[in-house]
Amino acid sequence: MESININTKLDLITDLWKPRVIAELNGQHVKISKVKGEFVWHDHKEEDELFYILKGKMIMEFRDKKVDVNEGEMILVPKGVEHRPIAKNEVWMMLFEPKHIKHTGDVESELTIKEYKTI
Amino acid sequence: MESININTKLDLITDLWKPRVIAELNGQHVKISKVKGEFVWHDHKEEDELFYILKGKMIMEFRDKKVDVNEGEMILVPKGVEHRPIAKNEVWMMLFEPKHIKHTGDVESELTIKEYKTI
Repeated sequence: MESININTKLDLITDLWKPRVIAELNGQHVKISKVKGEFVWHDHKEEDELFYILKGKMIMEFRDKKVDVNEGEMILVPKGVEHRPIAKNEVWMMLFEPKHIKHTGDVESELTIKEYKTI
Repeated sequence: MESININTKLDLITDLWKPRVIAELNGQHVKISKVKGEFVWHDHKEEDELFYILKGKMIMEFRDKKVDVNEGEMILVPKGVEHRPIAKNEVWMMLFEPKHIKHTGDVESELTIKEYKTI
């Protein structure tokens, strides 16, 4: 049991849209990621997903609306709901989701990650 | 699906050691709490627990060591491990844990919460 420094972990990330695992508990992962640009439309059939913005401003696009998620804010995307994260400028985020979740749901994309790395 | 502002939620809390639920997903709760002083020794037999420090400095005491957890850091307490959070000055924190977790484990205390409120 040691403390986990988020900024120290963020410093290790030099790429975009590739979440890294920083903690695992109760079958869930805590991940961090740096993102910029538009992700792909996707949903997760069985998993709710939480995005917490550490730096910058994300827009979470749904089929019927867009929601601004600013630094210090979070948004919960319920299972089965199509969504697409957008970051006009670089955004640093924390994710909380089941460990077996598929990165882009059933959508295959060049952004799809097959296996999450722990840092 | 709306954004959840952590500082706005924190402003609603005027007491200590009473976590409030701000999100529920995959059978887990995200809670926030303000704490100061020493909590009671306890463990959670079946639940891992994550503490993320939003403001201030917490000390997580275990039976064999104490760990400083500073602002921007988190600590994972695995199930079955006795622990006691200590805050010399007021600390604001976020918690990730299963929704059915008992606040003080099997220990009954004046600090024990029977039912978590959502804000």
